[in-house]
Amino acid sequence: MRILGIDPGYAIVGYGVVDYDGLHFNVVGYGAITTDAGVPFPERLKAIYDDMCTVINKYKPDCMSIERLYFNTNTTTAIDVAEARGVILLSAKQNSLDIYEYTPLQVKQSITGYGKAEKRQVMEMVKNLLSLSSVPKPDDTADALALTICHGHSAGSLYGKLMKGKNK
Amino acid sequence: MRILGIDPGYAIVGYGVVDYDGLHFNVVGYGAITTDAGVPFPERLKAIYDDMCTVINKYKPDCMSIERLYFNTNTTTAIDVAEARGVILLSAKQNSLDIYEYTPLQVKQSITGYGKAEKRQVMEMVKNLLSLSSVPKPDDTADALALTICHGHSAGSLYGKLMKGKNK
Repeated sequence: MRILGIDPGYAIVGYGVVDYDGLHFNVVGYGAITTDAGVPFPERLKAIYDDMCTVINKYKPDCMSIERLYFNTNTTTAIDVAEARGVILLSAKQNSLDIYEYTPLQVKQSITGYGKAEKRQVMEMVKNLLSLSSVPKPDDTADALALTICHGHSAGSLYGKLMKGKNK
Repeated sequence: MRILGIDPGYAIVGYGVVDYDGLHFNVVGYGAITTDAGVPFPERLKAIYDDMCTVINKYKPDCMSIERLYFNTNTTTAIDVAEARGVILLSAKQNSLDIYEYTPLQVKQSITGYGKAEKRQVMEMVKNLLSLSSVPKPDDTADALALTICHGHSAGSLYGKLMKGKNK
């Protein structure tokens, strides 16, 4: 199973592509889509969408594992991130990927066994579990790889949450 | 100038298409894109995107006038609406429409002269200004038509706010 992990954002979208056979993770690729603050927002959305399509066509993943958004104190940012997440979900749906979403707590729990683990600890485990020589940069990319691991661990169990109607 | 007004949402997207020559409004068409709650969310986003492209290709507007989102108490809904708004903005950008956004307060101010006017009053003015025999249903459609009027009134003045970088 080839998993595309996505850490959604509008300035930086982290992505990671990992093959998982039920036992081993094999990193296929990773990186970040970035957009410039000086560019009108709809153009940034289009750049994210276009780059997402390019990534999906390049790696041909079976599914997407994407972080679930929650409200936080910075509402304007949350709305912008959600708009970007919308075009990311669209690119996945148009390419027939199954889409799964996980909360940051689920990701931490899956990778370190502790839902409130510190970011540094999560990053270190991403490096170890994927046999990387260093933690990938930027953090958004490492977070995206964490999402692939989380989905690998949960696939086949009831833990994985496919985005469905109503109870999504 | 042909204006496409959009009241964004994920269950209902209201739209209205109006020609404006600087003096008169001429209604070209209006309606609502609806999605079913029982359908997985990414599929609803794709349906909204596809239908938006159909509307744009049918009416070939010059610009889009879309409601600006603000945080409200129902955060989950706000995130879902923002994700839908993201794919709506994408459809406009891909079709080279100029995109303008207005707050509900600006719309009410533009149509009734009073930013805190009641919804019913705004609806009544939409009917009158567009010479319609009745207020279009659902409310989302009437709101979308209100956005076309707001943009018509503000076009050519400094009041119109094109979505730009940084100060968007």
